[in-house]
Amino acid sequence: MSQPRGPLSQLRRGHEELVLGLLRKHGPLSRGELGKRCGLSRTTLYDILAELVASGAVVTATSQEAPRGRGRPAETLTLNPDAGQAIGIDFARRALHVAAVNLAHEVVGSASEPHDADLPWEERVELAVRLVGSLTGTRTGAGALRLGALDAIGVGVVGVVGSPEAGRDDPATAQGDSAGGQDDPAVPHPVQVLLRERFGVPVLLDNNTRLAALGESIWGAAAGGQDVLYLRLSHGVGGGLVVGGSLHRGAYGLSGEFGHITVEPGGARCDCGGTGCLETVASIRAVLDAFRAAGGRAADVPELVKAVRAGDSTALTLLDGVGARIGEVLAALCNAIGPSVIVIGGELAETGPALAEPIERALHDHVMPVSRHRVSLRRATLGEVAGALGGIALVLHESPLLSRYPAGPDLAEDPIPDKESR
Amino acid sequence: MSQPRGPLSQLRRGHEELVLGLLRKHGPLSRGELGKRCGLSRTTLYDILAELVASGAVVTATSQEAPRGRGRPAETLTLNPDAGQAIGIDFARRALHVAAVNLAHEVVGSASEPHDADLPWEERVELAVRLVGSLTGTRTGAGALRLGALDAIGVGVVGVVGSPEAGRDDPATAQGDSAGGQDDPAVPHPVQVLLRERFGVPVLLDNNTRLAALGESIWGAAAGGQDVLYLRLSHGVGGGLVVGGSLHRGAYGLSGEFGHITVEPGGARCDCGGTGCLETVASIRAVLDAFRAAGGRAADVPELVKAVRAGDSTALTLLDGVGARIGEVLAALCNAIGPSVIVIGGELAETGPALAEPIERALHDHVMPVSRHRVSLRRATLGEVAGALGGIALVLHESPLLSRYPAGPDLAEDPIPDKESR
Repeated sequence: MSQPRGPLSQLRRGHEELVLGLLRKHGPLSRGELGKRCGLSRTTLYDILAELVASGAVVTATSQEAPRGRGRPAETLTLNPDAGQAIGIDFARRALHVAAVNLAHEVVGSASEPHDADLPWEERVELAVRLVGSLTGTRTGAGALRLGALDAIGVGVVGVVGSPEAGRDDPATAQGDSAGGQDDPAVPHPVQVLLRERFGVPVLLDNNTRLAALGESIWGAAAGGQDVLYLRLSHGVGGGLVVGGSLHRGAYGLSGEFGHITVEPGGARCDCGGTGCLETVASIRAVLDAFRAAGGRAADVPELVKAVRAGDSTALTLLDGVGARIGEVLAALCNAIGPSVIVIGGELAETGPALAEPIERALHDHVMPVSRHRVSLRRATLGEVAGALGGIALVLHESPLLSRYPAGPDLAEDPIPDKESR
Repeated sequence: MSQPRGPLSQLRRGHEELVLGLLRKHGPLSRGELGKRCGLSRTTLYDILAELVASGAVVTATSQEAPRGRGRPAETLTLNPDAGQAIGIDFARRALHVAAVNLAHEVVGSASEPHDADLPWEERVELAVRLVGSLTGTRTGAGALRLGALDAIGVGVVGVVGSPEAGRDDPATAQGDSAGGQDDPAVPHPVQVLLRERFGVPVLLDNNTRLAALGESIWGAAAGGQDVLYLRLSHGVGGGLVVGGSLHRGAYGLSGEFGHITVEPGGARCDCGGTGCLETVASIRAVLDAFRAAGGRAADVPELVKAVRAGDSTALTLLDGVGARIGEVLAALCNAIGPSVIVIGGELAETGPALAEPIERALHDHVMPVSRHRVSLRRATLGEVAGALGGIALVLHESPLLSRYPAGPDLAEDPIPDKESR
């Protein structure tokens, strides 16, 4: 299941990207024209073109122009407009979200459906297949999805994931939105096995909150940001880091666990096993519990939002304190990591300025003065499909064509002799 | 001054690295043998070989074996054992450190010399030239340094540096070991201009504390670590992050500022303009002041270390509290970033277990339980030349041969026609 990572397979991938880049830049080209422009030997180039055509990424066409001189008309190569479409699926705790993009990386469709938290993986995958099927019927200006052109599927799951190619997590034992789970890169996640059977393409996996960070950094509130910190205030408190434009995983797949940073030493017990974690102060349950303990009335976040909008002083005071705690944590992380954008997502972000303003104040007060005007605090814009879009980003970043060379052919051992050096 | 960064110059660099990698793996090879193994066209390969020979990275030799058949003996190509040597220089506040490595990345020499904090840049550079000169006379088993083979020089300076190619900082206005300074990538640092004049090679620049992090991750306490957090407890408190094997800079060159994370809201005023920063608790001055305020006697760190070793209970209690604060900050950063190794450097690390043990306890208590046994806390091993070695690492990571292609020739516009496609 492991992807080739050696320098030579990377080189081969680089060659493929060069060829694809030339076709993107110049439009249809003949093999000869491609050869002139790419600097590769004829053997290497033809080999790569054969693979690209076989995979459907590139299609051949007979040139429309009148052939000059004798012989058959020149065959040209061009990008397949239907190829390179990617699907992302977010297997959240109680809902499934899917999204799809075309070759131009435009979002061509998305869909969501809630389900019980204990729905077995087999049924979740069936639901995913149904939702993906509903997208293939969706015709938009950006073009419909054709499953035959899929390169890979990017999948988000709850829990700890060490590498995108493999990981496992049992949602029944996972605690908190992004805590818990087990990481054994040798064992594929059940959802990877099931999806691979159904779609016949590689399935890349990561934590869904981290993927939401990646999604927001490409299509959402931090679009174009190279260094982004994403904090999600939901049933759990978690997040993700985009570093230099790539998702940061950390040495053991344990990064972005902002919810488990201690903010109240000796404070309330947290599901992670620690005490006084940010999650014990800033999760949906923590905030609703504190609101009710202070005499407020709200059964869920929409009711809390209603109270906030009505100017309920108990709610405003509470969120002021919660925001201050969040801002202090964000300031510490800014000093350490130096993001240009901080994105706040999750249901609690719906409370708006009542939470955002105290966060911003505390961030301003505790970040190094020299950084104060360099970091921008924004509310997430992708909503519940952020994780599914992040799954697509994972595919675009980490898979492209790499997966087609399963054993990573070492070019130095290539049995095909190079014609011009014989 | 800017380096080429486009995909095509990256591809060319990839081709060069492929050629160098084949010579490293197989030893001397003829042009024909190289051609067979690299998959590049003859034009591209010969072009790259000509550059490599001209730069001194590769040398030609006549094969020792008897030529088969007629014609002149085959010429072979081999890596130049004297080439690729790199120099690192750390322009610290009150001392200069230099180090050099050979092609095999073995450290062939290092030297240090203290100076006044207000020594002008011109005189610092003269001192650097003298120290580097002293290394070229040093003959060790790993081979002496030949300046003619230099690819680039990696330089550490105090203050904020945004990108390794340029940056500026006025030591007279810099505050704290890694705070202050200005970052304008368009303006080269004076030391870059002066060193380039003296050595005639590109000069890469970064913050010296961040470079120490990189040095420790390659040659020091975290050798081989891909995700490393380095904390330096000195006159200032700073650090650096190595993420996926590369130095992390942050969006504005402001990363690793661990010393300016708030640990005592409303606490002592910090040089950075904030209050209650870790630096106000854990810098050399803060610790010595607190020790004297508690009735202890120590004019400097060596005297503090002596008190600690004598079992002075005032010193032990003080360091216990300081270590707890440091450990709490490290735990928060571990949850967010997920390093595999934390390295503690700087003079205060000399206090040994009296500080390391409370750090480790607080780290254990506040990091997510699932991460507790995954992160290793270690004392820095490179001492005062860590920054200079990090400068070398910067050259090896970011410059190699890239700097020889100043305009980044776009291969698509290459005027040299490719023979086999004509």
